[in-house]
Amino acid sequence: MKTGKRINIGLIGAGRIGRLHAENLTRHIDGARLSAVADVYLKAAEEVAQKFEAPMAVSDYRTLLENPAIDAVAICSATDTHSAIIEEAAAAGKHIFCEKPIDFSLEKIDRALAAVKKAGVKLQIGFNRRFDPNFQKARQLVEDGKVGTPHLLRITSRDPAPPPLEYIKVSGGIFLDMAIHDFDMASFLMQRPVTEIYATGSVLVDPEIGAAGDIDTTAITLRFEGGPIGVIDNSRQAVYGYDQRVEVFGSEGMVAIGNDTPDQHVYSNKEGVHSSLPQYFFLERYNESYIAEMRRFVRCLQQDTPPAVSGKEGRLPVVMGLAAQKSFQENRPVKLAEIDS
Amino acid sequence: MKTGKRINIGLIGAGRIGRLHAENLTRHIDGARLSAVADVYLKAAEEVAQKFEAPMAVSDYRTLLENPAIDAVAICSATDTHSAIIEEAAAAGKHIFCEKPIDFSLEKIDRALAAVKKAGVKLQIGFNRRFDPNFQKARQLVEDGKVGTPHLLRITSRDPAPPPLEYIKVSGGIFLDMAIHDFDMASFLMQRPVTEIYATGSVLVDPEIGAAGDIDTTAITLRFEGGPIGVIDNSRQAVYGYDQRVEVFGSEGMVAIGNDTPDQHVYSNKEGVHSSLPQYFFLERYNESYIAEMRRFVRCLQQDTPPAVSGKEGRLPVVMGLAAQKSFQENRPVKLAEIDS
Amino acid sequence: MKTGKRINIGLIGAGRIGRLHAENLTRHIDGARLSAVADVYLKAAEEVAQKFEAPMAVSDYRTLLENPAIDAVAICSATDTHSAIIEEAAAAGKHIFCEKPIDFSLEKIDRALAAVKKAGVKLQIGFNRRFDPNFQKARQLVEDGKVGTPHLLRITSRDPAPPPLEYIKVSGGIFLDMAIHDFDMASFLMQRPVTEIYATGSVLVDPEIGAAGDIDTTAITLRFEGGPIGVIDNSRQAVYGYDQRVEVFGSEGMVAIGNDTPDQHVYSNKEGVHSSLPQYFFLERYNESYIAEMRRFVRCLQQDTPPAVSGKEGRLPVVMGLAAQKSFQENRPVKLAEIDS
Amino acid sequence: MKTGKRINIGLIGAGRIGRLHAENLTRHIDGARLSAVADVYLKAAEEVAQKFEAPMAVSDYRTLLENPAIDAVAICSATDTHSAIIEEAAAAGKHIFCEKPIDFSLEKIDRALAAVKKAGVKLQIGFNRRFDPNFQKARQLVEDGKVGTPHLLRITSRDPAPPPLEYIKVSGGIFLDMAIHDFDMASFLMQRPVTEIYATGSVLVDPEIGAAGDIDTTAITLRFEGGPIGVIDNSRQAVYGYDQRVEVFGSEGMVAIGNDTPDQHVYSNKEGVHSSLPQYFFLERYNESYIAEMRRFVRCLQQDTPPAVSGKEGRLPVVMGLAAQKSFQENRPVKLAEIDS
Repeated sequence: MKTGKRINIGLIGAGRIGRLHAENLTRHIDGARLSAVADVYLKAAEEVAQKFEAPMAVSDYRTLLENPAIDAVAICSATDTHSAIIEEAAAAGKHIFCEKPIDFSLEKIDRALAAVKKAGVKLQIGFNRRFDPNFQKARQLVEDGKVGTPHLLRITSRDPAPPPLEYIKVSGGIFLDMAIHDFDMASFLMQRPVTEIYATGSVLVDPEIGAAGDIDTTAITLRFEGGPIGVIDNSRQAVYGYDQRVEVFGSEGMVAIGNDTPDQHVYSNKEGVHSSLPQYFFLERYNESYIAEMRRFVRCLQQDTPPAVSGKEGRLPVVMGLAAQKSFQENRPVKLAEIDS
Repeated sequence: MKTGKRINIGLIGAGRIGRLHAENLTRHIDGARLSAVADVYLKAAEEVAQKFEAPMAVSDYRTLLENPAIDAVAICSATDTHSAIIEEAAAAGKHIFCEKPIDFSLEKIDRALAAVKKAGVKLQIGFNRRFDPNFQKARQLVEDGKVGTPHLLRITSRDPAPPPLEYIKVSGGIFLDMAIHDFDMASFLMQRPVTEIYATGSVLVDPEIGAAGDIDTTAITLRFEGGPIGVIDNSRQAVYGYDQRVEVFGSEGMVAIGNDTPDQHVYSNKEGVHSSLPQYFFLERYNESYIAEMRRFVRCLQQDTPPAVSGKEGRLPVVMGLAAQKSFQENRPVKLAEIDS
Repeated sequence: MKTGKRINIGLIGAGRIGRLHAENLTRHIDGARLSAVADVYLKAAEEVAQKFEAPMAVSDYRTLLENPAIDAVAICSATDTHSAIIEEAAAAGKHIFCEKPIDFSLEKIDRALAAVKKAGVKLQIGFNRRFDPNFQKARQLVEDGKVGTPHLLRITSRDPAPPPLEYIKVSGGIFLDMAIHDFDMASFLMQRPVTEIYATGSVLVDPEIGAAGDIDTTAITLRFEGGPIGVIDNSRQAVYGYDQRVEVFGSEGMVAIGNDTPDQHVYSNKEGVHSSLPQYFFLERYNESYIAEMRRFVRCLQQDTPPAVSGKEGRLPVVMGLAAQKSFQENRPVKLAEIDS
Repeated sequence: MKTGKRINIGLIGAGRIGRLHAENLTRHIDGARLSAVADVYLKAAEEVAQKFEAPMAVSDYRTLLENPAIDAVAICSATDTHSAIIEEAAAAGKHIFCEKPIDFSLEKIDRALAAVKKAGVKLQIGFNRRFDPNFQKARQLVEDGKVGTPHLLRITSRDPAPPPLEYIKVSGGIFLDMAIHDFDMASFLMQRPVTEIYATGSVLVDPEIGAAGDIDTTAITLRFEGGPIGVIDNSRQAVYGYDQRVEVFGSEGMVAIGNDTPDQHVYSNKEGVHSSLPQYFFLERYNESYIAEMRRFVRCLQQDTPPAVSGKEGRLPVVMGLAAQKSFQENRPVKLAEIDS
């Protein structure tokens, strides 16, 4: 594949996140074209195809895989379909962008990654936060040695409101659904392996979440190789909006990332000094990062360079999520080697 | 014209700002289409037309005006051509978006506005900063009474670097080129007429600017009807980037707008606490506002509502600029009535 | 003791912290008088007495205890002498202000508290941070219900530089020397009991600290009754200064406390936007809190009200410190009931 | 006078500001002693003397001047008595600290300064804001060349509430009472002479202030030698508290000083992000600066060094105030040479 070639992308899954990628591919990414949309609900596929002027809408994604004009697929379907579609897409010689997480089962993930390797196609996992300008800046400062040797990592990640209970029930639980982003961020920022995890948590936001077998508030401690320590806290509900902060502290300094706000106004009256809440939801907060990750995926196909977030990198947060889950269940620190020996 | 109709827009002037509007019309504004591009340099017109897939590129804007398929024009040519093109476009029955300033001559402006009125077409002037989310927020707080009766207005507007000397020579001078945005902002935020202006200034950034007959640093005092006072300061060069701040202070409180930054990182080391500079240039800083003003223009055509920044509103900052110029030349406060009786 | 009576205070221990209290008593606290200074090094006692015009300097604190003119003592001697002096002072009928921690041994603490109770004297423990205007504000917002039900607590407490190794060796270790302040802060802010603690830590700042049997970096997870979770991180060295932050997050909002700075300047140049580091050391950062705690102690004697930080409250952080120590040693969560059944 | 000698200071004027200096001399300034207090109301003198343990209280300040044990006087009486007392104190060989302004009459000021010069005593004028840590930092950055050549200066100085009307009537007007601090700050920060002033103003806070012949809101433009420009805005009432900000912008960067706050809390709830108002009043805001200026005065006597704010420096803001007054009255820029030829 030569530099500059127009990449034809087939979208698999026309839900919220699929629609987002469709829009970004159409409006923001030179060198790519949304060539087809597949969704088990044909109507959804047709609607997205029409809105973004894709020439093809189908209900069976295999139709896309058989189409030689399509260079790559973006897998945005339900998590439990990811690994199978990856295997089939790889076999069909398509490059693959796959939403996170690859799967909840390490066995399935390993089968999918093996298929990708065998086919020699490219696979990028949708850990979009790595492409956020804020976290990019943090990573860059760490890489440039501005923080020195990292000693402590803090990640706060709180949603503005819990998802629907129906979603929670199939989400894989807070560690695999929500903290998984933070596990990836921890790897991205610290650039060294986590060796052990301790997770504790509670049901404080909504007892229904507890009834559904999940928790809604958690604090997770990570031990990194060589001694650095990370702490992650998650909540399903921050009434003041989407709270997304990180902090890397080391021997030479600290970089802290605050929340983006929709404006920079400060209003002072006799009650106090007031300013804007964080961007409310992930679609606004991470808007740029979704564009950037897809731009990067397209560029890696055009220039034949390694993908930004590899299958191996996409697998690691699942290992960490499973370790956190086990730690919470058994109330003890769990070594990653117990999960993935 | 019915709600929802696709608006066909012809772009006149394919320079930097014309290109920006072309991109926004193509990527960000549902319900509009870039139908043609005109530029005296045909090559520039063709390049923009090709990049944004406009079906027509011409060197003579009159070709656009004669085309019945075109609903509206966006005038992005040199300032000294604005008023004539407005007259012709109005006569041709085209709705008009015109970049600021309309003209430096009140006589020409009045002739153009009369033509618009006679033709019954819509005219929106490109004071884009009104559409910036920050300044929108400030205006909203003022309108909502949160500031009470305004007492003081402060506007700081500093460019990251001076434009080329060639541009400065034809720019109309700092008051009509640079402060004109702040004059419009003053009207937008204070919602009451300015009655008198005092302007002082210096050449501090580059003696060449002085040699070209202009100044590069200015402070302008505005008196508003009823007593409120405004102060504007401008510089052609802020080494730390594009500095765009306003503050409205009144009987009940104050709203202050700070600079947007590309990220929210804070880096602490033994030397101090460090964070990001403001967005460097107007294309980044005011990106959203350019989209929003054009979206609003298209909507006002679709819904047949009054334009957001009328010809009369676009004329006022020119009056203020001329008053500031006279004040600076004569080193005395000048009443607006002296300019526009 | 009647309201307004002048309180005569004898200082026991003329080291750094004793000197600080001597100065505060002399300069900032109406209604109190530094009446005597005792230190095993008579010279130190004499020097402080002279500087702050105290009429008496002795090497044996028992001389103070026998002096009927002295109403109260401020115990600022080495930690391992606290509990014995408390017992003797109580027996002598003196009211007692005692620096933290009371002792490292719960048995000794309990004996001392029993002596205080039997004698009917007042005892206030020097957890000064409770009196810091920042943490007072956080507590007040929690008490006023502004945070709603607390869900998560975050405390960051990092020293600008490690203390001398000789000090570290007798300090009781990071959990009893440094985190102890944060344990008290956790109780102060959350107003509910901690039930379980998990602590992990590393030697990252200086291997000599490890050689001395201590660690220099730690992250501690607290579980509170009812489910809220707290995370504390400590480091012996933040190159950017004394880092003292807390955050209480709950069902209705969040209060976060940032660092105090010596000024509010912001300097922008082409490299970035720069501001001042936090106050460098605890003497500046907590200056006001030391005055406030002593003022409160004097007032509680004058007005015969309960002391602000009781013996029981002073004992609790020691229990937590011992639990954290055990947790770290055994790498497992430890219930407070295991330490203090 | 030798280094380290204890300086005996007589206070003249036991009002609010005199009381403040009495407290600072007693509590915060090693090497000085409040030796006597004079006030036309003997009771006021006695009360302050008693509270701060000064051995002498008199109604006639001449008693102090005749006392050979007194080294220096602090003149805190009504402004219209300053110049006469300076002359007498100088004649009596006393060093002098005098509250600002020296006088409203340049003639009287010049007579007083001549007397000081003739007697060879030291005179320091109470422009305390120069000693504020914030403005010290700004000045230092300017001096260190961090701002480069200054181009623009902005000063915002707004009181939390107007003083009593009775005070306004004898205050000398907003330019000599309130802006005078900013005039001194302008000189302090810019280190070059002001050549011309334009002042405009309004009555917006309280019509009674207008009825008393004053204004309550003003914007003042300063032209400095060489071209830099300054803008000052004043208001007698900022409902959000005491607003004291400056900004120096130059060829290499900008330093901006924000308001001090009593704490660093940030509270987020669903309505927004909220923080503390500025320190409410000058006694809190400038507390440190009052101590520092007096400490400096005492040190200059002990070490026989030049005073920090000389009589000449204290005279300049009066010239600027008179120019601003004239500019406002005649609505035209006024050269300083018109006032002080």
